[in-house]
Amino acid sequence: MTSLITKKRSKKAGLPPGALVHVGNIVNPKIHISMIDYDPAHLVERDDITAEECVQFLHTPSVTWINVRGIHDSSVLKTIGKHFDLHGLLLEDVMNATQRSKLDDYKSHIFIVMRMLTFREELDILEDEQISVILGPNYVISFLENTKDIFEPIRNRIRSGSTRIRSMGADYLCYAIIDSIVDNYFVVLEAVDKKLDDLEDTLMHAPKPTVMNKIQRAKREIILLRKSVWPMREVVNSFRRLETPLISSATQLYMHDVYDHTIQAIDTIESFRDIASGMLDVYLSNMSQRMNEIMKVLTIVSTIFVPLTFIASIYGMNFDHMPELRWQWGYYFTLGIMGTAALGMLIFFRRKHWI
Amino acid sequence: MTSLITKKRSKKAGLPPGALVHVGNIVNPKIHISMIDYDPAHLVERDDITAEECVQFLHTPSVTWINVRGIHDSSVLKTIGKHFDLHGLLLEDVMNATQRSKLDDYKSHIFIVMRMLTFREELDILEDEQISVILGPNYVISFLENTKDIFEPIRNRIRSGSTRIRSMGADYLCYAIIDSIVDNYFVVLEAVDKKLDDLEDTLMHAPKPTVMNKIQRAKREIILLRKSVWPMREVVNSFRRLETPLISSATQLYMHDVYDHTIQAIDTIESFRDIASGMLDVYLSNMSQRMNEIMKVLTIVSTIFVPLTFIASIYGMNFDHMPELRWQWGYYFTLGIMGTAALGMLIFFRRKHWI
Amino acid sequence: MTSLITKKRSKKAGLPPGALVHVGNIVNPKIHISMIDYDPAHLVERDDITAEECVQFLHTPSVTWINVRGIHDSSVLKTIGKHFDLHGLLLEDVMNATQRSKLDDYKSHIFIVMRMLTFREELDILEDEQISVILGPNYVISFLENTKDIFEPIRNRIRSGSTRIRSMGADYLCYAIIDSIVDNYFVVLEAVDKKLDDLEDTLMHAPKPTVMNKIQRAKREIILLRKSVWPMREVVNSFRRLETPLISSATQLYMHDVYDHTIQAIDTIESFRDIASGMLDVYLSNMSQRMNEIMKVLTIVSTIFVPLTFIASIYGMNFDHMPELRWQWGYYFTLGIMGTAALGMLIFFRRKHWI
Amino acid sequence: MTSLITKKRSKKAGLPPGALVHVGNIVNPKIHISMIDYDPAHLVERDDITAEECVQFLHTPSVTWINVRGIHDSSVLKTIGKHFDLHGLLLEDVMNATQRSKLDDYKSHIFIVMRMLTFREELDILEDEQISVILGPNYVISFLENTKDIFEPIRNRIRSGSTRIRSMGADYLCYAIIDSIVDNYFVVLEAVDKKLDDLEDTLMHAPKPTVMNKIQRAKREIILLRKSVWPMREVVNSFRRLETPLISSATQLYMHDVYDHTIQAIDTIESFRDIASGMLDVYLSNMSQRMNEIMKVLTIVSTIFVPLTFIASIYGMNFDHMPELRWQWGYYFTLGIMGTAALGMLIFFRRKHWI
Amino acid sequence: MTSLITKKRSKKAGLPPGALVHVGNIVNPKIHISMIDYDPAHLVERDDITAEECVQFLHTPSVTWINVRGIHDSSVLKTIGKHFDLHGLLLEDVMNATQRSKLDDYKSHIFIVMRMLTFREELDILEDEQISVILGPNYVISFLENTKDIFEPIRNRIRSGSTRIRSMGADYLCYAIIDSIVDNYFVVLEAVDKKLDDLEDTLMHAPKPTVMNKIQRAKREIILLRKSVWPMREVVNSFRRLETPLISSATQLYMHDVYDHTIQAIDTIESFRDIASGMLDVYLSNMSQRMNEIMKVLTIVSTIFVPLTFIASIYGMNFDHMPELRWQWGYYFTLGIMGTAALGMLIFFRRKHWI
Repeated sequence: MTSLITKKRSKKAGLPPGALVHVGNIVNPKIHISMIDYDPAHLVERDDITAEECVQFLHTPSVTWINVRGIHDSSVLKTIGKHFDLHGLLLEDVMNATQRSKLDDYKSHIFIVMRMLTFREELDILEDEQISVILGPNYVISFLENTKDIFEPIRNRIRSGSTRIRSMGADYLCYAIIDSIVDNYFVVLEAVDKKLDDLEDTLMHAPKPTVMNKIQRAKREIILLRKSVWPMREVVNSFRRLETPLISSATQLYMHDVYDHTIQAIDTIESFRDIASGMLDVYLSNMSQRMNEIMKVLTIVSTIFVPLTFIASIYGMNFDHMPELRWQWGYYFTLGIMGTAALGMLIFFRRKHWI
Repeated sequence: MTSLITKKRSKKAGLPPGALVHVGNIVNPKIHISMIDYDPAHLVERDDITAEECVQFLHTPSVTWINVRGIHDSSVLKTIGKHFDLHGLLLEDVMNATQRSKLDDYKSHIFIVMRMLTFREELDILEDEQISVILGPNYVISFLENTKDIFEPIRNRIRSGSTRIRSMGADYLCYAIIDSIVDNYFVVLEAVDKKLDDLEDTLMHAPKPTVMNKIQRAKREIILLRKSVWPMREVVNSFRRLETPLISSATQLYMHDVYDHTIQAIDTIESFRDIASGMLDVYLSNMSQRMNEIMKVLTIVSTIFVPLTFIASIYGMNFDHMPELRWQWGYYFTLGIMGTAALGMLIFFRRKHWI
Repeated sequence: MTSLITKKRSKKAGLPPGALVHVGNIVNPKIHISMIDYDPAHLVERDDITAEECVQFLHTPSVTWINVRGIHDSSVLKTIGKHFDLHGLLLEDVMNATQRSKLDDYKSHIFIVMRMLTFREELDILEDEQISVILGPNYVISFLENTKDIFEPIRNRIRSGSTRIRSMGADYLCYAIIDSIVDNYFVVLEAVDKKLDDLEDTLMHAPKPTVMNKIQRAKREIILLRKSVWPMREVVNSFRRLETPLISSATQLYMHDVYDHTIQAIDTIESFRDIASGMLDVYLSNMSQRMNEIMKVLTIVSTIFVPLTFIASIYGMNFDHMPELRWQWGYYFTLGIMGTAALGMLIFFRRKHWI
Repeated sequence: MTSLITKKRSKKAGLPPGALVHVGNIVNPKIHISMIDYDPAHLVERDDITAEECVQFLHTPSVTWINVRGIHDSSVLKTIGKHFDLHGLLLEDVMNATQRSKLDDYKSHIFIVMRMLTFREELDILEDEQISVILGPNYVISFLENTKDIFEPIRNRIRSGSTRIRSMGADYLCYAIIDSIVDNYFVVLEAVDKKLDDLEDTLMHAPKPTVMNKIQRAKREIILLRKSVWPMREVVNSFRRLETPLISSATQLYMHDVYDHTIQAIDTIESFRDIASGMLDVYLSNMSQRMNEIMKVLTIVSTIFVPLTFIASIYGMNFDHMPELRWQWGYYFTLGIMGTAALGMLIFFRRKHWI
Repeated sequence: MTSLITKKRSKKAGLPPGALVHVGNIVNPKIHISMIDYDPAHLVERDDITAEECVQFLHTPSVTWINVRGIHDSSVLKTIGKHFDLHGLLLEDVMNATQRSKLDDYKSHIFIVMRMLTFREELDILEDEQISVILGPNYVISFLENTKDIFEPIRNRIRSGSTRIRSMGADYLCYAIIDSIVDNYFVVLEAVDKKLDDLEDTLMHAPKPTVMNKIQRAKREIILLRKSVWPMREVVNSFRRLETPLISSATQLYMHDVYDHTIQAIDTIESFRDIASGMLDVYLSNMSQRMNEIMKVLTIVSTIFVPLTFIASIYGMNFDHMPELRWQWGYYFTLGIMGTAALGMLIFFRRKHWI
């Protein structure tokens, strides 16, 4: 499961920089490009078009959003790279789907790498995917790999006429994309929160050995969350502080809000860490306590019956001369002694609060 | 219980920014607006008025304090937003009752989000609530959700004529509100302190398995305290350093004092963390020690009686030729050996300081 | 014992700032003011005078040191406040004896709050007390609560004519007071050091269950030390860096030295933390090891005698047809088998290094 | 194994600075110098030449890359040092193969020390080696010790004509060397990742005592990784920020990318730390749980049979007057009581969820 | 042993600053002053001279190095202080042998306090000693306490004519002294490294209870190392950044190197901390595992023999009517049942991987 942490970057070792080699798991075999071009007045949508077809929309003043699903085909990327005049390292970063979140300012465009987290409840798996965004003067190009389209709500806002997003520029669109990724962190945070809650319930009421593995899984997910969200803070902060004509100050004000959310997500993750390590303590102390309980039962039973058995075994000896054996009331007397000893033990345990 | 940590923010994911959706638990179904308008000379109070009625007091030079209880009705917020010219993101933050404490400077007004903590002793629950404050040139608008009015003492100081608060501006009122929230942290800190104290007593004198859960609860409360108080430090610091005509330097001097209190609260919380984790150590070592004690009893009893029983069982064998059984003093001799063995064991345990 | 950490600040919640309410324990019921007024040439001392009597010495060029013992009487403080033109918040801080160490620059005077630690060996209690100092152009006013006068050595240096303190200003006197408080930390550090040393000896040679509570007490004291000494670093640093006509650069050079001592104290406290948590590890591993030893004894005794008893019990059965019972040497043969089994066990334990 | 951490630096203690004493293990007894001299148009390669032969290529405008394998011969270093006008401390650093990664700007040339990590899977050993690089106006000198040549891919890129590396300067070559070392960290990270993955599998399915030592080894490797990668971050950062005519801004842009990789490596190492310490917790809780299971078996068996044996031993006593022994159904009645007692115990254990 | 951490500073509490009271252990009862005066051309050495005799060499342009062994005699210090115009606080710091490492710039001279660590292997003790150095325009005065002279190698370099040290100024001499102290840290680091290595071997192969105390000792030494080396980093950094005519930029370049070594030492110490705390984990898990093993033996033996003994004891009962006792093959049949039960148990344990 640690393979969530590193992906096979090593196949790049020794290659020249800018070499377009796809690093990551190929989920989506076919590349699918869709485009939406809008200004306050009109809207054009195209689905499943080629890279070349997109290019014609670039030179219009309207905002063009090109969404590329599937990032493993270097020829498509090269076409886009050529038309938009993108640096080789940028294209390399798009294809290498194991990047840390970052924002690079290439002056004529801004390049943002982000990590999207999805919690697939049915599989109990936390998936992490890279989303790259290029923000140019009047266009946004987004690259993603998996099939679930998380940008549909944004597209709907664009389609539904008179919303704010229609009247603002490409920078606002870019903000909306970043915002939806950060909002998505909270969906994951809540899923993890629910998980921790359930774990806690299990811990309190019916601690089973498997609970330890579940705690460990939760801790692993929190580690992955941290690795994704911490660098996002820097990205969002760079975005709102960047001095560039590509981003208006109005959009930067909105970004302020996203920054607050990122900080809040980080706070929550740190709390989760504390809570998860607290659970471990509870589990271990539970184990300790159950051990104590088991040992108490063993000790009480042994301590009562071992001495009694000893007394009985004395009078089971076959010596010729054992006067007690001949006494009329010897048997009852012995039973009496045994009863007294047992009672004494019980009082002793009572005093120790063991029973 | 982790749900104290995250609240359901996820229902906002995908919505446009500035969308006025209430996030949080609705405690108070009816919105209740009260107003107090004062200057050194006179005082007007209105209870349960509408948003529109408040607006007329705005254009007077006197200080106007509008207090809105209940923040889930977006229409009321929109009315206020329109009259006071508030940014959409600000109104969104007011309704989203899961914000991290922060101070935003909107130039014409200052927006402060704070988290109020209340320890409800009867339920043994730490409640946390969002209080938003807008400080304008001669007005303060405060938004809160719960029913308990913590601002009554401030209102009384305003009512009682010749106090300092009457002669100073809206910024001083805003300071008084922040101060009362920070002072409230100390009430909670003392409640947690008392709790830790009780836990410690329990740990020393009568450690029960439930104590572990209580320690865990206390740790959770300390985590929540930290999440609330740490960001408050930044808020208070921004307030006293902000260069704005809305806040006078006299008020900023008072704010200095609040800052010191926040730092003191943080120090105390950090101490609590150390103390709580120390308790866990004490509990675990207690468990260990009790286990040792239990095992000692078992070992002493077994080690004395198991060998004695063995000796007795030898002479319980039915061999035809066992000369000892025929001896006159065989029985007493055997009892003597048993006594000596038991004594030897007792001396051995004494030497080991087990008894 | 956690009440060492927070004191009852909550009774202030809701009160206006600057309200003179005493917060803290009243130790010394009577207020006692003493004064010493000196320059290189002459010296005037007054004991048990009133606030009004002090004021006349203020307008002389000589250095006036007013020492106020007992800080719970607001009327005395108000008199002093009026004559020296002190801010309400300053007087509030003097009376609220739960302040964090800090230095406030009021331009016409400097206000310093410090925490004095005393280790009362006879009670094994670490006491912490607030000392406030006001440094004006040619006066120093110090406020303290407890009865033990730690400033006597300074007073003696003033009295004994030709010392440096007589020829320098009020700032040097203030430095001498701060220096004596920091020096006092080392007395406490050494007391804690000795305690840790003793604990370590106990741990090595005769670990008793009570040692855990003692470690916990020591940890608590270290937490309190940290809370007192860390803020002191900032105070001393502010003092030596402050740009004010009230403090000469010669005195700031001396303050450099105090700063080094504060850093040294902090280093030592951090080492103590490491050592105390190391002790806990030693204690827990000791417990573990003793448990192992106890279990070894139980296991050795049981493992030898339980099988032997089984053999004996076989020949204690009363079957009519048990040929061995009839053998001439059956008894001795059985004893031989038992001896061999026991010997085998002993060799097995020897191999495992258990005996 | 800690000797991975410090190497024998102590033999230098007391020597003057700049003393050329080799510190480290001599792996490669013979010094081997190779050279490659190129510009876009032509390429000269020389293998196994002397230091003197290299020097003639220096004054050509083409890029000269001198690679020195084996760093223990001070006379060779002195020759190079004289021709290239290198500072004594630089040569000392080259020979002292225990340096921390660093970048020193000597104005006329830049000196970089790096640590190369190799994971030798067949030996399960993490090897660490020093690589020093000197970047001059149109030359690069690299020093390494071990025999495996990790620079062969770079050399191939140079050889294969029209690649970018041929058309750019010595600074780009230097970047390529640094890049290949950082890329190599990922190979090691993946090896450690795989190891942790395997350990986790072992932990879940078949925890053996040896697993603890393996976890400890992995932790040690993570410590070594941290020691190597953290300083590398500073080196890469210095390289991309250095204001020097030796490095072009185009190359610094590429370096940006290497910096991102270094940060990513550090993130991953920190995750590994968390994971490794989580494993320890799992292991310890596994041990605890197995102990509980062992104790349960012992307790169940003892608690059932010890009382039964006691009952049997009562009727094994030889008293003359034991009426039960004479009863017709005494034996069966006793067996019935035993069966009932055993059943009661089993129900008790069932209730406790022990069986 | 904690007394390594604090020394008796408390005897200074209450004394005026600058009071020359020796704080520390007096090791060397007699004060011993030696002097070496050199320039590239000639060299004068004097041994066991008085403070007054040294002074005459001061006004020569050659570099004068005065080495004072024994720092407890305030009269000697006062003489030196008067001739070299040293501040009272400086002399106080020299005598108070418990200072933290620091560098104070007195403009006309620079004062450096350092802590020398010596690992006395024969006693297994880490000694720490204060070395104070005053760097003036053409002189260096060094103060130390113990008898072992670590500066002899430096003196030899001065004596052996044409070395660099002879041709450079007092600042280079001062650098050489600092360098030799930092180099000495590596000797100690290697000693601790070897110790940790040995401890690890012991842990793996023959964990004894005493190993815990040894780990604890090593941890204590690492704490002392940290306390000594961390402040040294600041000292070295100040030295190489100080803007003063007393230190040439050539010497500051050399200091760069010392700084790297200090950072390397700190890195190593931090690794040691990690390793030492890892050892504790190994030890505790070893204890746990041995406990498991002990319990397994007990459980296996008890679980096999306790039920068998029960069966035997049944047929040891003396009921008149026990038909089995009369059966021809009853005895063998019972033995068969016992054998089967034992075998079943063994198979059960085999399945659980206990045997």
